Amino acid sequence: MSQKHGKAKRGIPAKEDFNEWYPFIVEAAELVDKRYPIKGMDVWRPYGWKAMRMIDNLTHAEMERTEHEEVNFPLLIPESLLEKENRLVALLKKAREEGVDPSELRLDEDEAGFKKEVYWVRHAGENELDIPMFLRPTSETAMYTMFPLWIRSHADLPLKTYQVVNTFRYETKQTRSFIRVREIHFFEAHTAHADEECATKQIEEDLEIVRNIMHQLCLPVMISKRPVWDTFPGAWYTIAIDVCMPNGRTLQVASVHHYRDQWAKAFDIKYEDENAEQQFCHQTTYGMSERLLGALVGMHGDDQGLIMPPAVAPIQVVIIPVLHTEGKEEVLTHVDEVAATLRTAGLRVKVDSRDIRAAKKYFDWEIKGVPLRLEIGRRDIENGTVFAARRTGGKEPLPVADVVDQVRAQLDNIAKILREKAASHVENRIKKFPKIGWKADGSMVFNELKEGTIYEMPFDGSDAQAEEIEKFSGFNILGDSVENFEQEIPCVVTGKPTKRRVYVGRTY
Amino acid sequence: MSQKHGKAKRGIPAKEDFNEWYPFIVEAAELVDKRYPIKGMDVWRPYGWKAMRMIDNLTHAEMERTEHEEVNFPLLIPESLLEKENRLVALLKKAREEGVDPSELRLDEDEAGFKKEVYWVRHAGENELDIPMFLRPTSETAMYTMFPLWIRSHADLPLKTYQVVNTFRYETKQTRSFIRVREIHFFEAHTAHADEECATKQIEEDLEIVRNIMHQLCLPVMISKRPVWDTFPGAWYTIAIDVCMPNGRTLQVASVHHYRDQWAKAFDIKYEDENAEQQFCHQTTYGMSERLLGALVGMHGDDQGLIMPPAVAPIQVVIIPVLHTEGKEEVLTHVDEVAATLRTAGLRVKVDSRDIRAAKKYFDWEIKGVPLRLEIGRRDIENGTVFAARRTGGKEPLPVADVVDQVRAQLDNIAKILREKAASHVENRIKKFPKIGWKADGSMVFNELKEGTIYEMPFDGSDAQAEEIEKFSGFNILGDSVENFEQEIPCVVTGKPTKRRVYVGRTY
Repeated sequence: MSQKHGKAKRGIPAKEDFNEWYPFIVEAAELVDKRYPIKGMDVWRPYGWKAMRMIDNLTHAEMERTEHEEVNFPLLIPESLLEKENRLVALLKKAREEGVDPSELRLDEDEAGFKKEVYWVRHAGENELDIPMFLRPTSETAMYTMFPLWIRSHADLPLKTYQVVNTFRYETKQTRSFIRVREIHFFEAHTAHADEECATKQIEEDLEIVRNIMHQLCLPVMISKRPVWDTFPGAWYTIAIDVCMPNGRTLQVASVHHYRDQWAKAFDIKYEDENAEQQFCHQTTYGMSERLLGALVGMHGDDQGLIMPPAVAPIQVVIIPVLHTEGKEEVLTHVDEVAATLRTAGLRVKVDSRDIRAAKKYFDWEIKGVPLRLEIGRRDIENGTVFAARRTGGKEPLPVADVVDQVRAQLDNIAKILREKAASHVENRIKKFPKIGWKADGSMVFNELKEGTIYEMPFDGSDAQAEEIEKFSGFNILGDSVENFEQEIPCVVTGKPTKRRVYVGRTY
Repeated sequence: MSQKHGKAKRGIPAKEDFNEWYPFIVEAAELVDKRYPIKGMDVWRPYGWKAMRMIDNLTHAEMERTEHEEVNFPLLIPESLLEKENRLVALLKKAREEGVDPSELRLDEDEAGFKKEVYWVRHAGENELDIPMFLRPTSETAMYTMFPLWIRSHADLPLKTYQVVNTFRYETKQTRSFIRVREIHFFEAHTAHADEECATKQIEEDLEIVRNIMHQLCLPVMISKRPVWDTFPGAWYTIAIDVCMPNGRTLQVASVHHYRDQWAKAFDIKYEDENAEQQFCHQTTYGMSERLLGALVGMHGDDQGLIMPPAVAPIQVVIIPVLHTEGKEEVLTHVDEVAATLRTAGLRVKVDSRDIRAAKKYFDWEIKGVPLRLEIGRRDIENGTVFAARRTGGKEPLPVADVVDQVRAQLDNIAKILREKAASHVENRIKKFPKIGWKADGSMVFNELKEGTIYEMPFDGSDAQAEEIEKFSGFNILGDSVENFEQEIPCVVTGKPTKRRVYVGRTY
């Protein structure tokens, strides 16, 4: 398909050269403009913003289905709340290191050391502010300051809230559109529950939501429980959702955290239970970001540009009138009728009647990844057909009489093909973990590990051994798959048969 | 209706005491929570946020109708761009003072003095940033930095973009939910055109959009061209849209600016015309904010709480099952059926089957301003009716057989009543401007001006005379009404008959 290590046709880099293709395509398809004068802060162009809003709409629909309520918190957070979080994180770190329950520990105020990579607001107008503030990286501290005011009794639980907002991270690494940016379009759900078990059920619901959304996006994902050293600070455990990008690197697109009552204790989030006793809440969070769009771009695109999954395509169908001098008006009128019929059925349709060559039109809509193109000329009118070209390949005439059903079937088919292609890409990338070699000094040797591959590793060793694998291999332990594997395979370290599977790979 | 200067029933301050009623009601109706630890930054609660999003949806629909495209710009703006704006504003000020065309002037870099009331970001993590940045108060500078990259030829015009974002203003005055806040939920449209006339047509389209939205919100507005000293810095002229609040103060809820080519010259926004010559664009902006919600609250609310206009009510219909021990299941099933029928028709319906007293339910939904309440009990099922109570007053049984049409008619009727009530409120507030008295030293005396009144002043004097009226009266000149008045009335200053009408009042 593509010329190896060169430009594919029409100036687009070959997708094989992913590190060239990706930054090129996000601008060429007019998703974002990177020329804004702050690095890592792109301008969302109309087509990209529409795509992001379509993805948000999937999320809103799932939130409504599961009875989460949308809130909107201030962007700015007073420094004092960050200190509260810092103390909590330091306490949990200490508890982990000492192998004790966090509730057995107390922390001095000055033990809270680390400064987050946040943007600070310390001045306004000509004044220095009394209380320094920072731009939210996420909203735990802001929200958990308010939760105690909203939660009084068990009748107020569960509290299920979410918001879709801009968040900020002072990235020092190289930035990359959607994948590593400094202003992040972010979704965050925050819930509070009566006990650990109720919170655990929320985690299960979150994973169900993840699966529903990923199905619509045609994205196969790896869902795994992160190792303890990669758990979100403040969380009891973290389940992360990774997508395998074309270059074999994994991209975390979502994560779910079980907080138990750790934050509740730090922020005093209590309720009166049915016996009139005060109890701490158990909490969870669930986050996703614009990385979902980055994953779509990377997973589905090809040498011609993007391919948008029909569920979130800003334009699902582009109609191109095929015009000759004779019968121009007739064709244009017919095209408008077909477009109106499709729009009435709820489909997102664009008519491209620009006075330019057809090849240029094809190029424009292919690079933008419009899933279905319909061409309509005089002959099609005579034949009672429209001529359909799928962005995933294949062309055929469709009867215009039931054009809505026909188009819907085509879009379903395109989604199916995207899912199959993506699944096969991931299957090809995931390999069995090769044998570990051992040196005399006990260090590990990984001669057979290959860049661009993700490994499924039968593992039943200790955390310390997992950390050694990370250290000696240079690969990351993504975590324990949440899928149930029936087969017992010997652990790569201990040799003991195990059903546990750990994903290992290179991450973004 | 209300007890004068006291609490009305059920703990709600009387609306007559507007300065007590307003802050009470925005929290009691659960629109926002003001207990967030930064003053002037409220937390949007689910009900308030839903209402705001409903208002946004009206805006989105109008933007789509008029072919504006939605973009999303970074929140942070580098300081250097502000300096560009400052120089432009200083230049325009000078041109106005000297009475010359701005293009005849050139400005030295150091003449740009004033610092805006913005929040500054000068630090991130542990670092001081090389380039200081500020949080957008509006996005002219951010956008007009990109426009030259997007506009090449006349074929790229008009460029019509908009965004709905959070903006920031370092308010030093007393804050008030929705009306004067530090983080502002904001809509801003920015357009670029080939010439002044095209830009002027955009202004007309903007005012048509304003009228459509205000009709849905049941808000009568005063639309006037602001006096020159109250024109947005950088604008050729500003048209502002004011709502008359219950206390007679006017609240600016939207504004439209014609920039001519002033910003284009400062930011080098040019296009190649049909004769292959470079021309500067002419630009406009149109802004609205969460003040629209503040205006709704103030205009329509009463001693019982909010009244939400049906077009933006988060809940349009609340259904309350009337339950007795017998036939409970039957009633609940019937209620669910009615709710499903209404929802299928696109209506926003809530069923309140909480196990509490009916009076408490009435209170909850009245304070939140749900326009229509339906009660359904066994007798209603027997009679084939539902019992409807309008939030604007009046109750009656409706036939359940065509409940969708019946409910729609009720909601239309409620909107009509809100419009009439609001119009009559404004009519009562707007008076003819009283006679000006003159002292021997030539200063003006305004003995008859009354607080809480807005005046329509026939005026044909100079800007200097208008400024004198502001100075001596303590009232604000809102500006020249854009309505066409046929009748000629003598100007309050010169005595010359004039068709011009200037609004004068106290502003928020």
